[in-house]
Amino acid sequence: MEEKEISPAVIGRLPRYFRYLGELKDEGIERISSQDLSELMQATASQIRQDFNNFGGFGQQGYGYNVEYLYDEIGKILGLDRQHRFIIIGAGNLGRALGNYMNFERRGFLFRGMFDQNPELIGSQVRGVKVMPMEELETFIRENHIDIAVLTIPKASALNVAKRLVGTDIRAIWNFAHVDLDLPERIQVENVHLSDSLMKLSYSINRYEQEQEKTAKKRQTGVES
Amino acid sequence: MEEKEISPAVIGRLPRYFRYLGELKDEGIERISSQDLSELMQATASQIRQDFNNFGGFGQQGYGYNVEYLYDEIGKILGLDRQHRFIIIGAGNLGRALGNYMNFERRGFLFRGMFDQNPELIGSQVRGVKVMPMEELETFIRENHIDIAVLTIPKASALNVAKRLVGTDIRAIWNFAHVDLDLPERIQVENVHLSDSLMKLSYSINRYEQEQEKTAKKRQTGVES
Repeated sequence: MEEKEISPAVIGRLPRYFRYLGELKDEGIERISSQDLSELMQATASQIRQDFNNFGGFGQQGYGYNVEYLYDEIGKILGLDRQHRFIIIGAGNLGRALGNYMNFERRGFLFRGMFDQNPELIGSQVRGVKVMPMEELETFIRENHIDIAVLTIPKASALNVAKRLVGTDIRAIWNFAHVDLDLPERIQVENVHLSDSLMKLSYSINRYEQEQEKTAKKRQTGVES
Repeated sequence: MEEKEISPAVIGRLPRYFRYLGELKDEGIERISSQDLSELMQATASQIRQDFNNFGGFGQQGYGYNVEYLYDEIGKILGLDRQHRFIIIGAGNLGRALGNYMNFERRGFLFRGMFDQNPELIGSQVRGVKVMPMEELETFIRENHIDIAVLTIPKASALNVAKRLVGTDIRAIWNFAHVDLDLPERIQVENVHLSDSLMKLSYSINRYEQEQEKTAKKRQTGVES
């Protein structure tokens, strides 16, 4: 079967499907109708059907969806049916915060190592994982079959560290540094720009205020909106 | 002028335009051609033009774009020409990490307060801001004209805290808790689901491996792709 390119919008929705289905599973719910999934996801039944058709389709007319089956299948698509070993580079607050997320382990992401260049942080621990010096990076990645490197370091260091990672067998980088990395195709990257997220919030606040002002003006002048 | 709904995809791109233009400004670059902006943003000149047309259009035929003007205009659209006062609820590693981001202040986001229910964290400081007990939340928000509440607390507490925030004049919530909040329209929300981001990465790794396997199989059987 010809594999077509799946749109980023669909891919972006998959984790949320997975999360909600996980909650239904935890609640012991075996089956969910198209309508109910639609309300839960706040998406039309039609969009859900189209999303799933990218992967062969999952529902049954009149039955709806089997929760466990759908959860497992979406889990496989997301690559969560296998384990990934990750390290965190940068043992500051953000790196430590990520090291402490229990949730990652549930999804098969195993926290295996941590690195920093600051002598005060080297030797400290995050959930039993010791912070190692940067010199040991490549060796550790190789000996422990690390798949993913999480970068929680300043912009200035990120490009150099990325260059070093390109020389290893790492499969992916989860990048929290405020800089776009230039990586070969074989290394997947997911950029988390926290300030972008905050800027989107600021946009929403601004827009809401402008709409409120317009509505108030219309009321004052007696113009129908 | 009739104000149409601007697509989330366009809004999603604005912070990145803003970031890149900021860097050009810092480098002292006054003007950028359509072509160069296109290469920088890794978007077609046509898409950039369409994005800007949502806001009245910014370029000049033959001239390209004036960097400072574009930066300021996009800044205004993002609501960054004004200041926002924020508090962080949840003084764990993630909350502290966000409290330490200097970058937010540059964008007009002023870190004004921090809250937690853990007696061991109350009284500690993050960049001069003291961690206060939850009892003081509503009063502090009112007396300090707080616009944004950042939630870096466990899922279990998030819904209760959100309910309390609905009773205040807060304009927006930046939500890091793994739960969708049910909020009135006047409170904007931006959800950061870190595990969703990691799952998208896992999807990319999975997909890349599948493509590699297919290519390898085709070579083995001598089938042309």
